[in-house]
Amino acid sequence: MDNKQLKNKLDKIADLAKEASFKLSLLDTRTKNATLRQMASALKKEKRRILSANKKDLEVCRRKKMPKAFIDRLTLTEKGIDEMCDSLIQVSKLDDPVGNIIKSWYRPNGLKISKVRVPIGVILIIYESRPNVTADCIGLCLKSSNCVILRGGSDALNSNRAIFDILKKVASKNKIIEGSINLVDSIDHKAVDILLKSDDLIDLVIPRGGEGLIREVKNKSRIPVIKHYKGICHVYVDSEADLNMARKIVFNAKVQRPGVCNAMETLLVHKNVAIRFLPRMIKELQEAGCEIRGCSITRKIAKNFRNVRLATEKDWVMEYLNLILSIRIVDSLDKAIDHINCYGSRHSDSIVTDDRKNAQRFLKEIDSACVFVNASTRFTDGYQFGMGAEIGISTDKLHARGPMALEELTTYKYIIEGRGQIRL
Amino acid sequence: MDNKQLKNKLDKIADLAKEASFKLSLLDTRTKNATLRQMASALKKEKRRILSANKKDLEVCRRKKMPKAFIDRLTLTEKGIDEMCDSLIQVSKLDDPVGNIIKSWYRPNGLKISKVRVPIGVILIIYESRPNVTADCIGLCLKSSNCVILRGGSDALNSNRAIFDILKKVASKNKIIEGSINLVDSIDHKAVDILLKSDDLIDLVIPRGGEGLIREVKNKSRIPVIKHYKGICHVYVDSEADLNMARKIVFNAKVQRPGVCNAMETLLVHKNVAIRFLPRMIKELQEAGCEIRGCSITRKIAKNFRNVRLATEKDWVMEYLNLILSIRIVDSLDKAIDHINCYGSRHSDSIVTDDRKNAQRFLKEIDSACVFVNASTRFTDGYQFGMGAEIGISTDKLHARGPMALEELTTYKYIIEGRGQIRL
Repeated sequence: MDNKQLKNKLDKIADLAKEASFKLSLLDTRTKNATLRQMASALKKEKRRILSANKKDLEVCRRKKMPKAFIDRLTLTEKGIDEMCDSLIQVSKLDDPVGNIIKSWYRPNGLKISKVRVPIGVILIIYESRPNVTADCIGLCLKSSNCVILRGGSDALNSNRAIFDILKKVASKNKIIEGSINLVDSIDHKAVDILLKSDDLIDLVIPRGGEGLIREVKNKSRIPVIKHYKGICHVYVDSEADLNMARKIVFNAKVQRPGVCNAMETLLVHKNVAIRFLPRMIKELQEAGCEIRGCSITRKIAKNFRNVRLATEKDWVMEYLNLILSIRIVDSLDKAIDHINCYGSRHSDSIVTDDRKNAQRFLKEIDSACVFVNASTRFTDGYQFGMGAEIGISTDKLHARGPMALEELTTYKYIIEGRGQIRL
Repeated sequence: MDNKQLKNKLDKIADLAKEASFKLSLLDTRTKNATLRQMASALKKEKRRILSANKKDLEVCRRKKMPKAFIDRLTLTEKGIDEMCDSLIQVSKLDDPVGNIIKSWYRPNGLKISKVRVPIGVILIIYESRPNVTADCIGLCLKSSNCVILRGGSDALNSNRAIFDILKKVASKNKIIEGSINLVDSIDHKAVDILLKSDDLIDLVIPRGGEGLIREVKNKSRIPVIKHYKGICHVYVDSEADLNMARKIVFNAKVQRPGVCNAMETLLVHKNVAIRFLPRMIKELQEAGCEIRGCSITRKIAKNFRNVRLATEKDWVMEYLNLILSIRIVDSLDKAIDHINCYGSRHSDSIVTDDRKNAQRFLKEIDSACVFVNASTRFTDGYQFGMGAEIGISTDKLHARGPMALEELTTYKYIIEGRGQIRL
């Protein structure tokens, strides 16, 4: 397919989606929920088909000698498919945000103004190797009455296509308007470039994947992008911390699942508690297989333990996504706040302290999407927050910040009801 | 100044603003309000200085033979300065949005999650010839604890500089942190290009001015932009309309102030009422100096009246900003909705009808920021909505839609309070 043909094909998809978005915005909750439940059943019934499509993708990737982590993300299991189904069922049970009146008031001239939630319109999801994103995004977009255009990685195309076809068929059977759910199956890289220029038809892009992909999307897009590049999350152990609590939180934030964006990458410790706190903490972390990189004072305190590499400036801005932790001892709460606001990625940061004033200062002064007191950063997650699901996490400040779910897939319009009022 | 020097200078401004934004976000409401009131007094006291600076700008523009409308927008009067002062006083009286708890809930594990309003950070305002924008934006940004970088048109530099200097002095006297309020006084056009690339320091751009400026900003910016290109607003007179009410609303929406974005540009009339409604309506509008461009049926109906030019496809997408109105007769409510969603600019659209069902369909199906029933589109305005002031109007769907004031200058963060919770 040459460039012009590709552009025509993609324009047609985006055009149809924009067209469909007007009708989809009017769809009743009951139909949406019934469709979601039937989608879950259909996936369950067609497990074999999905797994065999996934096998094809995996074979190609193994032949191409793709990295193990990549293969892991691409691999679908029976359990994985069950989880996709559960997620669709969960989404069917959540409140429909569309039509909610956010607020409503009367003006002195009698005009009634209401701020009402409506779908955003057409949402483009660009993702890498995880096929479950296909089902998750179709579910969340349908429930919020948004048309979705999915563009998954070319290495997962068979898996995505199988899941998409199954869900699309259920949608058609339920008379969900044609154009509501779309999969771009061109493996041509130019397809993304073309889509990202359709700012007259597509309202929002959510890229999901590694930092490289997300930067590329952000740089090329003429459509608004909501994203997070990375999660450089901190735990700060204050001079007034309950050190037992701190130990559990630090261990959890680093070790429970180190490869995700809400895992801790840097530990900050107030100098007054460093000697009491750090030696045992470092030992515990090292015993769990964690590499420690510390500031010079950390290294002195830890000198009886196995090698602690000297942390450099680079470590403070590194998202390890792995069992590696950088540690810095700070002189004060101020220095901790400065470090986080300077080196962090505005994702999730936690203070461990029993001092209410210090906690309040941390909560106010840390400029991140999620700021914790006495809890693990690992809780930054749509499901953990009680949103039922998650379409992404934002470290941006516009529109949505932190975990994004159904409400974040809506915008609002103003409805103004009068009895003939004119402006004087 | 060469490019490198200019870039250094602008980077320094943006750096300082970002730095200041952390402290400004903590500023108490009382200090902000006192400063706003003193700013109003200072402007009043220094009227002469402002008017004489404005005179300098006007002289240059007259020599350059700038268009009359441009000179009008640039011209400051004593009354204009009084209005700037009133606006600052109004803003001082509005509720401070910073720190408001949007919602707050407990999770089964005891975590308390609160969604709290915080300032956006650093806001860049790019505007053209209206010097009052300088004071309005300083006021709104200060009240919402945002640092502001102002870049006005080079033709208004003396006026902007005078207003800025007066307000900046008051800010300094009140210990508002240095870097909170900034004016870029380089007339080099490259300054805008450089600023629009500082997406690591500036959080939001709001361009205010003509469509050309706004498109240029949107195309060049790596920072999120909130904007409206134009206002192609419609009034639809339904078959079930109270035609007396319709007459008043149509006249108001077109004639009361035709040069603004919320004025009507196209009138749609249901065929069943066209013959009863249009002849007198067209006559009234023509008597008020309004040029009419109509579809072929409109022309037939209006044949006894002065020239009605045939409206072409181009007229449906034209923002006249002038005493010109296009009129189209439609067969049904559906056709009216299709016309508006197809040709409109998603700004403000109104239906005149006594039929509740038709009204509800219009409100739901029109995809615009502000949708009216039985009222003039001219009410789309922050002040008219009861927001006290306005920093712009958005036809975008992300973050803010419709009139934008203090709340729209905030984002939120999640505050999560625990007692040692870890993720299992």
